[in-house]
Order: sequence, then C-alpha cells, then structure tokens
Amino acid sequence: MEFIKHPQKADWSKLCKRPTKETKSLIESVETILSSVKKEGDAALRSFCQKFDGYAPENFRVSEAEINESENKISPLLKQAIEQARRNISTFHTEQLLEEKRIQTSSGVFCWQKQTPIEKVGLYIPGGSAPLFSTVLMLGIPAKIAECNEIIICTPANKNGEIHPAILYAAKAIGIRKIFKIGGAQAIAAMAYGTESIPKVYKIFGPGNQYVTTSKQLVSLNDVAIDMPAGPSEVAIIADAGANPIFVAADMLSQAEHGTDSQSILITDSEQLANDVITEIEQQLEALSRNEIAKKSLAHSKIILVKDLEEAVHFSNEYAPEHLILAVRNDESIAECITNAGSVFLGDYSPESAGDYASGTNHTLPTNGYAKMYSGVNIDSFTRKITFQKITRDGLKNIGNAIEIMAENEGLTAHKNAVTLRLDYDENDL
Amino acid sequence: MEFIKHPQKADWSKLCKRPTKETKSLIESVETILSSVKKEGDAALRSFCQKFDGYAPENFRVSEAEINESENKISPLLKQAIEQARRNISTFHTEQLLEEKRIQTSSGVFCWQKQTPIEKVGLYIPGGSAPLFSTVLMLGIPAKIAECNEIIICTPANKNGEIHPAILYAAKAIGIRKIFKIGGAQAIAAMAYGTESIPKVYKIFGPGNQYVTTSKQLVSLNDVAIDMPAGPSEVAIIADAGANPIFVAADMLSQAEHGTDSQSILITDSEQLANDVITEIEQQLEALSRNEIAKKSLAHSKIILVKDLEEAVHFSNEYAPEHLILAVRNDESIAECITNAGSVFLGDYSPESAGDYASGTNHTLPTNGYAKMYSGVNIDSFTRKITFQKITRDGLKNIGNAIEIMAENEGLTAHKNAVTLRLDYDENDL
Repeated sequence: MEFIKHPQKADWSKLCKRPTKETKSLIESVETILSSVKKEGDAALRSFCQKFDGYAPENFRVSEAEINESENKISPLLKQAIEQARRNISTFHTEQLLEEKRIQTSSGVFCWQKQTPIEKVGLYIPGGSAPLFSTVLMLGIPAKIAECNEIIICTPANKNGEIHPAILYAAKAIGIRKIFKIGGAQAIAAMAYGTESIPKVYKIFGPGNQYVTTSKQLVSLNDVAIDMPAGPSEVAIIADAGANPIFVAADMLSQAEHGTDSQSILITDSEQLANDVITEIEQQLEALSRNEIAKKSLAHSKIILVKDLEEAVHFSNEYAPEHLILAVRNDESIAECITNAGSVFLGDYSPESAGDYASGTNHTLPTNGYAKMYSGVNIDSFTRKITFQKITRDGLKNIGNAIEIMAENEGLTAHKNAVTLRLDYDENDL
Repeated sequence: MEFIKHPQKADWSKLCKRPTKETKSLIESVETILSSVKKEGDAALRSFCQKFDGYAPENFRVSEAEINESENKISPLLKQAIEQARRNISTFHTEQLLEEKRIQTSSGVFCWQKQTPIEKVGLYIPGGSAPLFSTVLMLGIPAKIAECNEIIICTPANKNGEIHPAILYAAKAIGIRKIFKIGGAQAIAAMAYGTESIPKVYKIFGPGNQYVTTSKQLVSLNDVAIDMPAGPSEVAIIADAGANPIFVAADMLSQAEHGTDSQSILITDSEQLANDVITEIEQQLEALSRNEIAKKSLAHSKIILVKDLEEAVHFSNEYAPEHLILAVRNDESIAECITNAGSVFLGDYSPESAGDYASGTNHTLPTNGYAKMYSGVNIDSFTRKITFQKITRDGLKNIGNAIEIMAENEGLTAHKNAVTLRLDYDENDL
C-alpha cells in the first residue's frame, strides 16, 4: 500500500488514474466470436462453450426441473437472507417509478413523459470463483418492477453442466425463468443478435471479465444498449480522526478481495488514523479466505493524507469513486458536497457490504471514473421516458406563430407549412 | 413513395429496416482525426479546420463582442419566438427535476437518490445548410436547468469565420457564453480530450453528419459519455379515415425536407386516406424551398395499408419511430398502446413541428429503431442519480445477518467481516 502525504494538486490527476488495459488484441478475438455467433447461431455457441468452458449444452435453456430443484439445494438461512434483501431492494426501486404528470406549457399545449419498460432485456451473471446471486437480485428486481416483458439471464454452467443453485433460486424467487447456460463473449453475442435458442434483447446488463465487457461495448455500437462501460471495482473512504480503524480496514479489505485489480483508497486528514488502519489491515488480512487476492490488490491501493476534509472531498470528487464511504463525524454535511460517486455510504455503520447485498440500493455502479457521467443501475435503466404532446386547436394558435418563424429562419419551409396549413384550415373551415 | 397494401407479418421486419451505412472507411478516417487532436491539440484543430471548412480561427472562442452583436442581427419577431420556445421548454424540463426522498427500507436503513448535474457538458451544433438555433435551446436549456457547471458549445464557422447570429443569440438568451468555432470530428475530439483552447467535457450532446456521429461513438468507448447513437430523422403517422389528408401530407413533407435519407411512413387503415395523402403531397411539394431534398427522401418513404388501427399500432411499435403522429379520432386510447417511440403527437393539431421548436418537449430523440432502448434527451441526460445510504447501529443489526449470510455464500469473507466486526464491536463496547 502506498502512503502519500500531502500530494500537490498537480499530482492529483496521476493519483486518480486507473490502470489502463491493452485492448487491441482483445477486441480482435472478441470480434471473431461476435461475428461467428451472428452468422452461425447455436452451432457457434456450442463450439465456443466447449472450447472455453469445457461443456457444450445440448439445450441452453435451464429446465423447469433444474430451477425448481434449486430450492432444495440451498439453506433455509440463505433463503431468508435473499428474501430480506429482495424486500429492501424492491422497496427502494419501486419508489423510483415515475408518476405521469401532464404539464400545460402554454394554454392548450399539454406535454408529458411516460416511463415505459424496455420490452426485452438480458442479464449477464458471471460464473467464475463466486456465484453472484446478489447480482441476479440487483438486475432482476428492477427489471421486474419496470415490467420488462421479456427478461432473460445468461450464465455459464460448470464442466458438469450445472449452474449454482443460489443463482437459480434467486432468479426463481423474483420470477425469472428464462435462464440460459452460456457465458463469455458468446453469451453477449447471443443476446445482441439472437440465435435459434436465445432471444435477441434490446439492452444487456451485468458484470463480467474483460471478454464480456469488451463484447458488450462492441455490440453497443450498433445493435443493443448496455447498462454502462465497466472497469475494476473500487472504494474510496474519507475518514476523520474519529473514525474506527477496525471498520475502515475491514471496508478496504472487502473491496480488495474482489479481484487483484480492485482499488481501495483511504483519504484522511489524520496521520494517526492512517497508521492505525495500516496496522489493522495487517491483522485482519490473514484470516480472510481470499487473502492472496486481497494482498495483490492492496499493493496498488493508496492512503492519501490531506490537510482537511474539504480537501478530501475535493480529491474524492476528482477521483469519482464507484463506492464512497464517509467515515466522518459530520457525514450529512460532507455528503452534501459529493458531486461524483456511484454510491455513498454515510457514517460508521454503513459498510459497502450493506449496499452490495441488502440495504436496498443497487450494486451495479459506474467504476473507472465513469461516475462523472453515468448513474448506477436504477429503474431508469430498464425504462425509457417517451414524451407525448396533445395540442388543441387554440393551443396551436398560441404557439403556431413562434413555430412558423423559427422554422422559416432555419430554412425549413415544410416545417412551417405543417403549422400554416392547420391554422389556415382552421380559419376557413370553422 | 412505396404503397404497400396489407403486408404479411413475416415482411414487417424488412419494412422496419433502416438503410444501413458503410462505416469501415469512415471509422478509419475519423480515428486519424481523433488521434491527431489527442496528440497535437489546437494545432491539429487548426489544420483540420483549414482543410475541411476553409477557415482556421486564430482564437477558437467566440468573443463577447460577437455574442453581444448577435442581438442586433436578428429580427425582433425571431427573438420573441425564441423567447416563447424557451419558456415552454423550460417549463416542461423543470418539471423533470427529481425531488430527494429518503426511503426507510428496513428500520434504521435509509436510502435515497440525489439527482446531481454532470459537471462538464459539450453541445455540438452543426453548421451546414440550416442554422440549428433550435438545437441550442433543446440542449442548452436542460443543461442549464440541471445546473451543469461548465456548458460549452462547439459549432463550425463559415469561410468568413462567422457563426450564424441566431445560434449566438439563442446561446446568449439561455446564458451560455463559452462558444467555440470548431466543427466536425475534430470538434468532438476536442471536447473528448481537451486542447489548449477547448476544455475536456464529460458528456457530448448533439446531432451532426456521419463524421460527427461516428466520432461521438468512438470517443464514447473510453473517454466520455454521449447523448445517444444517431441515425437519419424519421416520422411515422398512424392515420384513420377521419384524418385530414392536408395535415398528414404536410407532416410527411416536413420530415422529408430534413435530408435525403429521412424517412416518412404513413400507416393507415383507410385506402381512401392514403390516396388523398398521395395527391396532397404532390400538390404541396412544389412550393417547398427544399423540394429537391424532399423528393429524394420521399422516394424511399412508405405508405402501409393495414386492416385496422390495432395492427397499425403493432406495426409502429415494431418500427419504433423517432416521431409518431396519431392522426386518429381516439388518439388518447391509441397513445396508451404505444410502447416504442421517441416522441408521440396526439390528434390533428399536434404537428411534429410543434415538438421540433416550441411546445416544450425535446427534439433530440432516438432514431434508427433506438427508441426501443433509449429515451430522448431530458433532464436525466444532464444528471446522474447518485445513491446514498445511512444505516444506524440498530439498522445494521436488522440487516447485518442477511448480509453476512449472502457474503459467505458468495465466498466473500471480507465483505462479511465488515459487518461482523461492526456488530461485535457494538456488542462489546456499548
């Protein structure tokens, strides 16, 4: 871990930099996969499955029996926990639904927005070291609340053709039953173009390795929308002298265990706290099951000593962290100053884990500085706001002249005409 | 114009297809421009300006004097029209601001969203045949309402180094004074990377030719966000036997005059209306200033005869038009059935021109079928929804166990630890 004391403002942008990845060769191999699946459909999927996952399913679709059996394969405690998380995530996301409200912008001119679900969405759930059933909840629940008509999940099976029962159970618990055994870039291709087995969707969500995220970006250029560009997970913690080093260390470690490329940054105005956190991290580290990953990740993590919390906030806004923990006494007033972050955790008892699993906020968040321009996943992500307008005859009289003049000045006489002919018709006919 | 009577369902997807463009060579030339500007900044900008626009500004920034003089160069009538449009657009977009609302998802667990402006945004306003001052209003007003901190406009100057006064006046009227004389792919590069003269922004908005739209897509892969992918403008009109053929023809022509690649589609259950519209189009066409463009555009426009309005709605939802006019007697109930469109115009007196200029809705809308997954520009486009959470000690007791169990089952013990250490600390210490 690097301990940087009072960096110059000129060095901030270097400190805020994320590791850049070499993508050229990645793009080429992903393009090959995408075009094969586009051309050959299921046959291409099977061959890539065999090659990359060591298992090529005859039927990609998970059977009803497999889904139903998942219930017997996980503990009642986990079921209860999933149910509690489901309730909180539902409560928070349901509140995000937009109420339709007609606005009369001028007399007789009525305009409104209607939040309309995206009809077909695809959720990608990675396989790999941890069965991310929490991501099934975080993507599936808002998709259900938005009332997307077709919701599918793609997730890779293991070498025995099995999907982790917690993933199947979470999907079942929220009412998603179209689940396909397919992972990697080929899964993204299948959802973007459609194959004999897997329906084409309009928007693709979910995390994944670099093949998955690169293929999401490539298909988003023409064929589908995606949730957001991806990067390694990260947390920044702003802590004052009163923060608890045990908690701060635990939060940094919980980010560090995600992957070797995860980043934890502590920004503090207390050198004492910084030193206490370093000691605590060493103590907590050994007991962790994923301590090898955490150690590698900590190697490029940073502690930054600043002169006061104002500077800490300023630095954090420049960094634009995916997760930001405010381990400070005046957390409410500091929160008011945060302009760039994915999700913010206030006070000593709001660990990132809470938002990762069960408090109700979404855990699919912008990383890599993208919090400067993107929101995390929310109900908006699964809907569009279609605008509507209804103008009465008198309403058109009120704004018609402005339209005619503007259209004329833009050189668009047919635009003008569409108003003039209506106003004239009105005059003569009624 | 093609008149297609009762097409088979199997042919719908062909009828909904937009013209595809060859992009490979386009991407290569745009990439050259992007990398030059990234490397050489202003110097590259000047050389591209000279090459493409025949004018290389010494100072890219439009002077205060030029902005102020714009007021004397446009008519009082146009100023009034712009003011009326400004008011309506402001009214409609202001209503889209999100009120902050704390949700208690479980006892002691508070979660909320805060709508936060994107700090730096860039608006691209094309030059070319028409001075699109209306687009200045459509992008600038919501950016101002969202309270984006830095709002810049890039727009190409003519060979004499001038920008159309209506563009400068519209910008001035809404309080935008950072305007730069630069167009094309080089303008997009400047806003994406920043140069000595032009600040880097976080999100780029606005229409443009194929070089502009391709460069927007390329920079969006890594560096900035963009409003949405672009395509030629289009309108679909659903009309019944009671529709006024004069109005329908005028609306089709007002779309057709945009560009030779624009598309107008009439979907009707009345063969009589279809024939009357064809006659009307011929009559109205000749008087238009841009009738050469309109004629070429009409050549690939379509009239589709369907058996009833239900089928018309079904077809339109499959086509997902940028603009949809409902020239039907039961426009309110038909509007309820629309699932895919950018903006919908109800009844005989709501021409597309109204939304293009002055009713209050935004005219930056998803084309090319993208209405299936994207919204038009609205206040969301200029903001992010950052989530916040504050959990009390008792709140963490309520949900802590669920978090621990879920984290453990995902194999993430440090995530679990961040809760356990807090709950334990609590037990011993208080």
